[in-house]
This record gives sequence, C-alpha cells and structure tokens, in this order.
Amino acid sequence: MITRTADAKWTGELKTGTGHIRLGSGAFEGKYSFGTRFESAPGTNPEELLGAAHAGCFTMALNLALSTAGHPAKSVATTAEVHLEKVDDKMTVVGITLSTVGEVPGISNEKFQELAESTKKGCIISRALSVPMTLKATLA
Amino acid sequence: MITRTADAKWTGELKTGTGHIRLGSGAFEGKYSFGTRFESAPGTNPEELLGAAHAGCFTMALNLALSTAGHPAKSVATTAEVHLEKVDDKMTVVGITLSTVGEVPGISNEKFQELAESTKKGCIISRALSVPMTLKATLA
Repeated sequence: MITRTADAKWTGELKTGTGHIRLGSGAFEGKYSFGTRFESAPGTNPEELLGAAHAGCFTMALNLALSTAGHPAKSVATTAEVHLEKVDDKMTVVGITLSTVGEVPGISNEKFQELAESTKKGCIISRALSVPMTLKATLA
Repeated sequence: MITRTADAKWTGELKTGTGHIRLGSGAFEGKYSFGTRFESAPGTNPEELLGAAHAGCFTMALNLALSTAGHPAKSVATTAEVHLEKVDDKMTVVGITLSTVGEVPGISNEKFQELAESTKKGCIISRALSVPMTLKATLA
C-alpha cells in the first residue's frame, strides 16, 4: 500500500484566523483563509487542491489509455473546474468540469471521446469522488 | 457559485514522461511523474493533493464547529493519509485517515469527539468523496 500525506493547521476564528496547508512531499506549503476559500483573497483553498488532484490524475490516466489503445499522445492538458455552491444552506461541491485537450497523431475524434469518457469514469481520483463530473474533450 | 480551477499537462509516455500541475490561484506549480506517484521519487502526486484538500477543509470546518458550540479552539491541526492500493487489479484510494489534534480550552473529550466525528461526515470535501474515512481525534 502507498500512503500519501498532507497537513493542515488552523489558528484563530473562522473569518479572522489563518490556515496553513503542507503537502507531505514538501513540494508546496502555503496559507489559506476564509478569504482565499470563499472570497477572492489571493492564496490557495481546498477546492483548487481537489481540482489539481483530479486534473493530475485524469491527465496521466488518459495518456496511458491512449498509449494502450495504440495512439500515444504527444501531450494531454486538462483544466479542472470545481464548482462550489450552497445546497440546503450548506456549501457543497456541486460538480467538477474537466476540459481536456489531446495532441494525438492519427486518432479519430470518436475514439478520443470514447477513451476520454472512460478515463473520466475510471481514473483513480474520479473513483474516489461522489460528485457529478462533466467532460469536454478536444483534439488539438 | 464559486469556481476554483487547476491545470495539469502530461507529455510523453507513462513511465518516462513528465507531468506538470498548477493551482488556479498560482500558489503552487510543480512536476509529477510515474515515479512521484507510484514510486518514491521526490515531487507531488494527485493523492497528496487530495489529502491537502481534505485536511484543509476538515481543519477549517472543525474550527468552526468548535466555535459554534461555544468552545473556540486555539488551534486545530490535521494530517490526512491517503491510502492507495490495488483492488481488482486497479490502483484505488481505499481510504483516508484524518488524525486531528485540537487545542481547545475547557471542552470535554466527549464533546470534542462528537464535533470531530460530525465534521468528518459533514465537511465540504468529505461530502465530495466516496471513500471510507477514519478519524483519530485528540485533545492537546
């Protein structure tokens, strides 16, 4: 089993306090706050970290799916948008939109769509999530 | 609605290619690879980013729950461990362990456990996940 870790610490009240997030690898640590999460203050927030996990996983997995199908990609690039909205008075991740662009010599659009769709359903992070996912897949 | 974004790009084959992940806020960008994800190469990976999202959200939410219950915390610190294992021949997030330590003047351990448990079930990122979660909550 592989175990990956991350830490967070919060000091003070919700609206005036400050948080700190650190990746276990040490690749990143930074501050977050009520302002960076629910307003427009500069800094990170849990939702973009979730988006990074999802975009990173999907992109790697689609690359593998293309190679396995005999159509190795020159590149695959994906943006994840994580949508946060009040539902029944609770802030809720109401969906994630993945927009991916593949540079894949010789593949048909139909085959590319099929592989992107199955990757959306099957990649490791997708399978760890319970939220609706939308995919926009484009050949470069 | 709040939308948070992140980008990932992969170039080359799975085992020899390289990935790049960027948070929409710009707070972090870095490389990832087969080695940083499934082996022990230094660098980030989607699972620790998921852990960071979860630890960050849970910590902020537990802080709020404690304040709302009349027991404001001096601090709350949480480590998320994301466990990855092969299930039916697919690498799968088999669970997340949250270990949290609260410095909370005057609260009983029973009340702290109750609030931590309800935060584990109810925080925004927990509700976006489908994987089993384990909680270890300790008063400092």
